[in-house]
Amino acid sequence: MIVLDSEQIDKLIDRNEMMDQIEEAYKIFKAGDYYMPPRPCVEDANKTMMYMPCYTKEVIGTKILSIFPDNAELGLPSIDGIMYLNDYKTGKPLAVMDGQRVTAWRTGAVGGVGIRHLSRKDCHTVGIAGAGVQGFYQALYACAARPIDTVYVYNHSDRDLTDYLARLEKAIDNPDVKVVQCKTVEEMVKNSEIICTTTPSTQPVLPDDKDLLEGKCIIAIGSYTPEMREIPDAIWDLTNEVYIELPYACEESGDLSQPIKDGRLKEEQTILMSDYLAGNPQEITDPKKTTYFKSVGMGLFDVCIAQKILEKAKEN
Amino acid sequence: MIVLDSEQIDKLIDRNEMMDQIEEAYKIFKAGDYYMPPRPCVEDANKTMMYMPCYTKEVIGTKILSIFPDNAELGLPSIDGIMYLNDYKTGKPLAVMDGQRVTAWRTGAVGGVGIRHLSRKDCHTVGIAGAGVQGFYQALYACAARPIDTVYVYNHSDRDLTDYLARLEKAIDNPDVKVVQCKTVEEMVKNSEIICTTTPSTQPVLPDDKDLLEGKCIIAIGSYTPEMREIPDAIWDLTNEVYIELPYACEESGDLSQPIKDGRLKEEQTILMSDYLAGNPQEITDPKKTTYFKSVGMGLFDVCIAQKILEKAKEN
Repeated sequence: MIVLDSEQIDKLIDRNEMMDQIEEAYKIFKAGDYYMPPRPCVEDANKTMMYMPCYTKEVIGTKILSIFPDNAELGLPSIDGIMYLNDYKTGKPLAVMDGQRVTAWRTGAVGGVGIRHLSRKDCHTVGIAGAGVQGFYQALYACAARPIDTVYVYNHSDRDLTDYLARLEKAIDNPDVKVVQCKTVEEMVKNSEIICTTTPSTQPVLPDDKDLLEGKCIIAIGSYTPEMREIPDAIWDLTNEVYIELPYACEESGDLSQPIKDGRLKEEQTILMSDYLAGNPQEITDPKKTTYFKSVGMGLFDVCIAQKILEKAKEN
Repeated sequence: MIVLDSEQIDKLIDRNEMMDQIEEAYKIFKAGDYYMPPRPCVEDANKTMMYMPCYTKEVIGTKILSIFPDNAELGLPSIDGIMYLNDYKTGKPLAVMDGQRVTAWRTGAVGGVGIRHLSRKDCHTVGIAGAGVQGFYQALYACAARPIDTVYVYNHSDRDLTDYLARLEKAIDNPDVKVVQCKTVEEMVKNSEIICTTTPSTQPVLPDDKDLLEGKCIIAIGSYTPEMREIPDAIWDLTNEVYIELPYACEESGDLSQPIKDGRLKEEQTILMSDYLAGNPQEITDPKKTTYFKSVGMGLFDVCIAQKILEKAKEN
């Protein structure tokens, strides 16, 4: 059995390969060649263990999360975990990997695939709302998907971002890319052609201003419960379409469930990315075209990303 | 995170420490200081993943089994897995261990604790029915629990046991202990004061003969479904008591559910080992006294054994 910690995983990552692998996952999803049952959960004393199994025809993956909300009081992340892979044919344990890092790289790659297909090829700027872990990975993938020269980072709190920006610049590892902090979200939006939102906000983080949002490629990552929301209603004045991974997203994410409840969005306006990609979509060229991808993730992505990481580990 | 494969686990095992730890687990069980929810299971194409969580106040363990019955056609074991430990306070991943080996050492230790408390102190002989993995571990623990000089091994098939017996002798690692194969089960029973049954049989493997079974300490490990049965009805002519771990055993094991259905056994005749041990039971001295322990196992044992192995790994 191969065991990979976060640093070992980092060394194996090629962001373009990871995005290619997410596109493979969409193909598997479209073909129905997977089994992704409801996620069993057990809980005692506010300590939850969540088991997220997913079978493809090659591998069975289980992401196992420990969800400990009380960790906040200890200054620790509330979610930790591992990714466990078994051989599809024999069930043999194949690998255990750091779950946080697999999740970070896969969520970033899902956003990256959104950028690949929903932004203009010549985009040079990306803006990040939320200077957290996922903001970091979305920025990395944006730089791999498009010829980015400037990453704009906006964070709602006045936390000092010096170290965060320096780490991001180092990880991007390209002297042509600048990382710049914005004082206001409007400044970030104005400057960015691609916008990634990665916050736990329950109020829209982007300005509810149609003129400011027009022509942007919006990749919304944060809202993963019905109470959470990042994207304002102005989006519906600019596009009738929202790209998603799973119909379930309409229940899970407040970015979708709230506008549906308010009558601003109909479920028929959602487009599954797997369907969209299967149709070999045309490049986006119109600078006025606003696109919107809302990600909530799925176990199939974790399994496919972990499988690719395992393949790479075996090559090395 | 600490990762232990089967060989690393073997090196850390002290059988008496493991039996002590099972006794600790019985104390935790008796005090109710644990949470052991139903085991979530997912299945597709006859490939089952089973998640067996158990919380103590120190650690959260999940044994994860891949159960692939079709592996028999490939000449592979149908069950494989890992044991995963998280910190109770923070959920932090602590360890991943070879699941088969943790199971083998814990099941053996449970039988060993049965021997410690249900056999006479001066027993010199143990008989094993079923020359499989668990037969091997029961023999090892019997030799740790009592001053065994001869291990009698009976296997129903005519498979050549030369290699098995040699491996067992080597693992016992005591020149005073002989390992002897028996041609018949009667021969094994006649020679043995302690008898461990470790077969997947659906028919009693021990002779249905009260005279042959009288005065034995019987440790029944095999029957873990209502269809499986190892112990004949003659046992009920010799004792009114059967020691078990969990009330649930009366449903799960045919060794209990079948005699209950047939009116040979009443649930009131079962004694929880945790209750028995809490009462500081007297030593067994009467050579005519027959004792019977039926084990089906529980997640709490896995967690406690894995925790002890982890402690030992940290010391080394």
